[in-house]
Amino acid sequence: MTEAAPAPFTVDDYRSRMDRAARAAADAGLAGVLVAPGPDLVWLTGYRVPAETERLTLLVLVPGQDPELVVPALEAPDAARATGAPALRLRDWTDGVDPYGLTAPLLDARGRFAVSDNAWAMHLLGIQSRLPDSSYVSLSESLPMLRAVKDAAELDRLAAAGAAADAAYDEIRRLPFAGRRETEVAADLDALLRKFGHEQVDFTIVGSGPNGASPHHEAGERVIERGDMVVLDFGGLRHGYGSDTTRTVHVGEPTAEERRIHDVVREAQDAACRAVRPGIACQEVDRVARAVITEAGYGEYFIHRTGHGIGVTTHEPPYMIEGEEQPLVPGMCFSVEPGIYLPGRFGVRIEDIVTVTEDGGRRLNTTSHELALVN
Amino acid sequence: MTEAAPAPFTVDDYRSRMDRAARAAADAGLAGVLVAPGPDLVWLTGYRVPAETERLTLLVLVPGQDPELVVPALEAPDAARATGAPALRLRDWTDGVDPYGLTAPLLDARGRFAVSDNAWAMHLLGIQSRLPDSSYVSLSESLPMLRAVKDAAELDRLAAAGAAADAAYDEIRRLPFAGRRETEVAADLDALLRKFGHEQVDFTIVGSGPNGASPHHEAGERVIERGDMVVLDFGGLRHGYGSDTTRTVHVGEPTAEERRIHDVVREAQDAACRAVRPGIACQEVDRVARAVITEAGYGEYFIHRTGHGIGVTTHEPPYMIEGEEQPLVPGMCFSVEPGIYLPGRFGVRIEDIVTVTEDGGRRLNTTSHELALVN
Repeated sequence: MTEAAPAPFTVDDYRSRMDRAARAAADAGLAGVLVAPGPDLVWLTGYRVPAETERLTLLVLVPGQDPELVVPALEAPDAARATGAPALRLRDWTDGVDPYGLTAPLLDARGRFAVSDNAWAMHLLGIQSRLPDSSYVSLSESLPMLRAVKDAAELDRLAAAGAAADAAYDEIRRLPFAGRRETEVAADLDALLRKFGHEQVDFTIVGSGPNGASPHHEAGERVIERGDMVVLDFGGLRHGYGSDTTRTVHVGEPTAEERRIHDVVREAQDAACRAVRPGIACQEVDRVARAVITEAGYGEYFIHRTGHGIGVTTHEPPYMIEGEEQPLVPGMCFSVEPGIYLPGRFGVRIEDIVTVTEDGGRRLNTTSHELALVN
Repeated sequence: MTEAAPAPFTVDDYRSRMDRAARAAADAGLAGVLVAPGPDLVWLTGYRVPAETERLTLLVLVPGQDPELVVPALEAPDAARATGAPALRLRDWTDGVDPYGLTAPLLDARGRFAVSDNAWAMHLLGIQSRLPDSSYVSLSESLPMLRAVKDAAELDRLAAAGAAADAAYDEIRRLPFAGRRETEVAADLDALLRKFGHEQVDFTIVGSGPNGASPHHEAGERVIERGDMVVLDFGGLRHGYGSDTTRTVHVGEPTAEERRIHDVVREAQDAACRAVRPGIACQEVDRVARAVITEAGYGEYFIHRTGHGIGVTTHEPPYMIEGEEQPLVPGMCFSVEPGIYLPGRFGVRIEDIVTVTEDGGRRLNTTSHELALVN
């Protein structure tokens, strides 16, 4: 994990992303895009706000106009340091000024705008109240694929994040499990992800025994015992791009049933990865994984979608879910993570990040899918 | 900092808060309150979501109906463990189901609803699209004072958080500053807040020399030098309630100008704290602080409001800002934090948390406001 850091993104990278977003909006019949702090803003400008607060920060992209960033005066120096800042006009506002009144004149009063999914309702309502004839639609509904196709520099970062997560898994499975609390293993996972270059750790799920049957259980005070299945699902950001990997390990020898269920999940995950190729619909990836699990008799225990996109955030379009007809395109990058969850008993999930190439899917995680036996 | 932990909140505490919110909504002519993950949900139910994501979690409070919590099936076990859960009906939904379609029947299709400030725009738009005749207003606009008046158990927690922040300051000012990076001092502050009982650290601002002139500068790679003013602004959560303290220290002997500016800020902060009493408007606290700084000739360098409420989050109503006519009420709790910021040179800010009592303001921070000289 000592390879050189990737070349930083430049103001031209950000300018071209903002251009692309404005053009996509125009093509979709929208008057513009309103971008809130968070992954959209980071991707479009490189600006990470000091904190997401009640003070309005909003990037306004209108086709044919220069991008404008409405920003609290307090944070204007931070915004001005963002790599993309030279491509923006900063409109700073001081406490006491109405930031919605400042924003409204930048917008077509009768326009329809895409707005970041995670924009605060308070801010959307503030703008709506100043422009009662305007209308809004979420970015993931109107332009869901804006960030979905990654370029080579982004794929390099995603691969580097995946390699670091793999290295963390290779170490964690050599450490003792039995007799330790889930939170202790989670702390080790956190440290390993950082050791291998993550600047941010977003989740370190350790679901032992019955806790593994709750897919989003994080890590608790349960002491791991011999005979436990343990779901390990961990990820964060490296060079600004996400990792997200799951492996399920077993403390000591598994039962025949445990082995069988792990085999079913492994087969489902493998079949779904092999199904990935340009042109098939996202929902097809979900169907392939689900068919394997359903045929084995565990369909009712696979209680979530098969995957989600990943990039500057670890949950983003495209989603591998029934009903998502978006065709796969080379450069898309997403998780493939089927699971089986037996309430009160245990869970099994296997997850890799996969990118679409002209020839099919390429996994960005390469550690074994065999059921690892740990101590 | 080894005092006993406070008694945990009970399901009855949460039930009475939800009742209070529903009644306040009815009194304000609203059909209900839609509560998103974050501080509102924590305060009303004790439920902290595993992560704020694109999957809808929403508490629906409608006067005269039992509270309902729409929650992703994946996270239903987490929600069911929240202390307030027995007072809720859980409506879990699995991937593939339309969560807005599930939520809409719980709402009056022509009603006007308050919605958490930080609810995702995507979720608000999803509900709006199912109920085109409904309307929405942010919680901080419609029911701004819902969480503003703290009860005795909450004030105990806020005082405990303040005492821990004071203890952290008492230690940090004895450590070396000159020759160390801001980030190193920030890491020490983080560790000290945790040592004194914080379970979460939200910010550790270390603004040395010119960095102190940017009020929201966090902590950077600048090496602190002899002769620097250093703004230290730090806080987080202890027993679920916030701390937020600022002291400005000086490395070695200050100049006469530095001393004078620190004196002005100290006088402004003290005057504002002394102005606190039931019945005066929030904006009056801001005016008192601002008058002192303006009279001293530094008005243009005091570039933010004087304070913000604090509770389960560190920024919430009431705001001490021009235009806020809300009268102070015993039990309100907020920061008083004037500052002077000389661009390119240095900044000074002094901040305490103050609670309103029948007799006036009571500071929850008690460390000295003298300009501490550090090494």
